[in-house]
Amino acid sequence: MGLSSLDQLIHELTRLPGIGPRTAQRLAYYILRSKDHLVDDLCEALQQLKEQVRECPECFSYTEGEGPCMYCRDPLRSNFELCVVEMPSDIEKIESSGVFKGRYHVLHGVLSPLEGVTPKDLKIDELLSRLDGIKEVIFALDADLEGDTTVLYLSKILVQKGIKVTRIAHGVPIGGHIDYIDKRTLGRAIENRVQV
Amino acid sequence: MGLSSLDQLIHELTRLPGIGPRTAQRLAYYILRSKDHLVDDLCEALQQLKEQVRECPECFSYTEGEGPCMYCRDPLRSNFELCVVEMPSDIEKIESSGVFKGRYHVLHGVLSPLEGVTPKDLKIDELLSRLDGIKEVIFALDADLEGDTTVLYLSKILVQKGIKVTRIAHGVPIGGHIDYIDKRTLGRAIENRVQV
Repeated sequence: MGLSSLDQLIHELTRLPGIGPRTAQRLAYYILRSKDHLVDDLCEALQQLKEQVRECPECFSYTEGEGPCMYCRDPLRSNFELCVVEMPSDIEKIESSGVFKGRYHVLHGVLSPLEGVTPKDLKIDELLSRLDGIKEVIFALDADLEGDTTVLYLSKILVQKGIKVTRIAHGVPIGGHIDYIDKRTLGRAIENRVQV
Repeated sequence: MGLSSLDQLIHELTRLPGIGPRTAQRLAYYILRSKDHLVDDLCEALQQLKEQVRECPECFSYTEGEGPCMYCRDPLRSNFELCVVEMPSDIEKIESSGVFKGRYHVLHGVLSPLEGVTPKDLKIDELLSRLDGIKEVIFALDADLEGDTTVLYLSKILVQKGIKVTRIAHGVPIGGHIDYIDKRTLGRAIENRVQV
């Protein structure tokens, strides 16, 4: 239709992950049609997010307001166990399981020689500087090449410091059928078998 | 993670069509992670859209700036044929075919007794007031109950005024296999068969 503001919004929307040109067009027309305060509400929420959310100075997860995040502040959590994750969103997933009650550390990525991600690009120095009193570091990283590389790299350093290093078990999901599981996961599940 | 600004953005994003809670969360985390001017660019594009785009006073499609839209202004298009569509986005689709060279009229909906959409809710008075010189009205509406109802309602009025009323053909898509076509479409394709 040759509307530059419509094309511009479609262009901006396609910068988001999983939003292709067709989805962006559908969203833009919906926004155009909306008669309520959708645009104002969206923009305010976007700006608020950018203004209010910062990285926690201890674990580098996201937090709002002054000082460390709610998990770093919580006096009831163990100071002996540190769970290392790739992204802040991983913490929410782990919290939803209700099993882990220690502290977190967000690397903001994993080592990837192919994509040029080196230890300096991650919060690794920050991790190594907060190991006082930590007895166990649990890696909750994906079981792919990058995750494995990161665990290997860090575990060498951590073991030298006398810290116990573990990683979450990879195996057949609860409710998953062996028929439908890929062979790498199944292989891992057999290697990591647990005595009954 | 208990971040109110993150939850707020996720809430706003789920108001958009096709965006569920999980997609909204993924988008929100992506936006949070983005280091460039994504938020500012998005907000500016959203505000620009709302400020600049208005309805064309003739066809009720969307346009920017003063006066009628580019199709209503175009002196090379026929003033004898009027194509009636449901939404402004339909015009772009029809233009992409390159076959129609007349004028457009956007109803901004279709009649739906079930959802309480009556003729007064649509741009029907506006359609009837611009029929001077029109020889043919082509309906490009969906072939569902609401589309059929709308065509039936309007064609009665238009035929009385001596205007030729047509609607776009519904049938097997080009490249579509008869095996995969639903029975209603196939039925329509047989009814509307064309002599070779």
